[in-house]
Amino acid sequence: MSNKPKVAIQGIPGSFHHQVALNEFGTEVDILYKDSFEEVAQAVENEEASHGVIAIENSIAGAILPNYDLIDRHGLSISGEHYLPISHQLMALPGQKIEDIVEVQTHPMALLQCKVFLKKYPQMKQLAGIDTASVAQDISKKKPLGKAAIAGRIASEIYGLEILAEDIQTVKSNFTRFILLEKKAAIQQQYHQKASIKVTIENRSGGLAKMLTCMHEEGLDLSKIQSIPVIEKPWEYAFFIDAVFEKIALFEHCMKRIQSEFGEVKIFGTYKVGKK
Amino acid sequence: MSNKPKVAIQGIPGSFHHQVALNEFGTEVDILYKDSFEEVAQAVENEEASHGVIAIENSIAGAILPNYDLIDRHGLSISGEHYLPISHQLMALPGQKIEDIVEVQTHPMALLQCKVFLKKYPQMKQLAGIDTASVAQDISKKKPLGKAAIAGRIASEIYGLEILAEDIQTVKSNFTRFILLEKKAAIQQQYHQKASIKVTIENRSGGLAKMLTCMHEEGLDLSKIQSIPVIEKPWEYAFFIDAVFEKIALFEHCMKRIQSEFGEVKIFGTYKVGKK
Repeated sequence: MSNKPKVAIQGIPGSFHHQVALNEFGTEVDILYKDSFEEVAQAVENEEASHGVIAIENSIAGAILPNYDLIDRHGLSISGEHYLPISHQLMALPGQKIEDIVEVQTHPMALLQCKVFLKKYPQMKQLAGIDTASVAQDISKKKPLGKAAIAGRIASEIYGLEILAEDIQTVKSNFTRFILLEKKAAIQQQYHQKASIKVTIENRSGGLAKMLTCMHEEGLDLSKIQSIPVIEKPWEYAFFIDAVFEKIALFEHCMKRIQSEFGEVKIFGTYKVGKK
Repeated sequence: MSNKPKVAIQGIPGSFHHQVALNEFGTEVDILYKDSFEEVAQAVENEEASHGVIAIENSIAGAILPNYDLIDRHGLSISGEHYLPISHQLMALPGQKIEDIVEVQTHPMALLQCKVFLKKYPQMKQLAGIDTASVAQDISKKKPLGKAAIAGRIASEIYGLEILAEDIQTVKSNFTRFILLEKKAAIQQQYHQKASIKVTIENRSGGLAKMLTCMHEEGLDLSKIQSIPVIEKPWEYAFFIDAVFEKIALFEHCMKRIQSEFGEVKIFGTYKVGKK
């Protein structure tokens, strides 16, 4: 039995999730490649994997809300966060020029993120792939001429492709925030810097103001807030909140107050602040 | 000179933006079809159009943040909102069966929204199109067999295509919130129900709590809040806020207080609450 961490990710070698797993755990790691976020969460739930890595927030499109639901349903908790700059590279079999490319394939979100660049090359037919890296892998196997992938630099290295155009995403400072998932208690005494919670409260603006005042009094500093309407109960609102704090005891005391005074609290996890 | 409203939208006849324009203005309207949100905003700014319609928020992906920036840069204001349920239909030339389809093309976001359905049909190659409706138009012109579009019902009616599978989006209660843009003052006395604002404040949790308390005291009820970090100034935070209220005078008084006590306020517009 190896003692290496077993990390479940969505995607294949060379994907952005793979890059995050390597950045977080180094090369001494067993990576389990899964087809969906759901399967990643399942693998952590049934202890096939010790950790999971999933994208949670994009600096262009905002939060990936369904992934919060996943954490909840599979009884997992957030044990860390990782900010990865997302740079897209146009890559193809070596020896080709950009003028030779008549077909480009990648994940639909990457097509959107490279829209301005692609508009300059109307001769390139745009195809959707299931993943950025899987297209690079496919090109390295089947060796089609005239076809390019859009993926991260790591995919060009793994699959031996040549980069024809660098950093082709429209927004240059585009980053994605990933979270690490584990099957363990949400509150970890040793990680006392940041927490992700969901609070459901009635009486929206008055209630939220009082709750934030409470958080401020307890020494919690807000780093993110996003409201989502509770569809079945239009008078209730839920808020996804990230907060940073100095001591875990302050955080726990604050959560008890919110639970008793304002509404239902779900703690997704406490963890260290990730570097940007 | 016609007195019909001239409404600029992104896309072509049969698009979801077209549907919103018809729902809002009826059939007695001149619609200007534009290639991008930027061109829609430009058309309203230079008075080629009296109104613009742009998507601003999706119930799955959250806010389309760059479109707020567009309103700001072109000196426009929000004069209304419209919630459209987004239902995707698989459509092709009449007489074909779903088994005949080997290629499906649509907007990348629609591919994502129909991911679970498309997984059941691996024989369908997935192509990205610039728009949902433009693929339907293309099929009606070029009459390819074996090719399907994913678009709204209105596109199948306009382009004479047959629906092979109905409501194929993964999330059945998916809706998109659109806003109407006009070139006029942001505060309209006659529209006294709702407003969209952006506030930039320092001292995140303490400042936000006090500002929301102020809003509550002034009778404003929050319907949406989303934080966005101000990239150049990491200690400052900006919030997109939608609020509902009873009287425009209360709203104006509250905005003056926020501006003097908390930070910079940008008012995007005041308008009537849209039906869901």
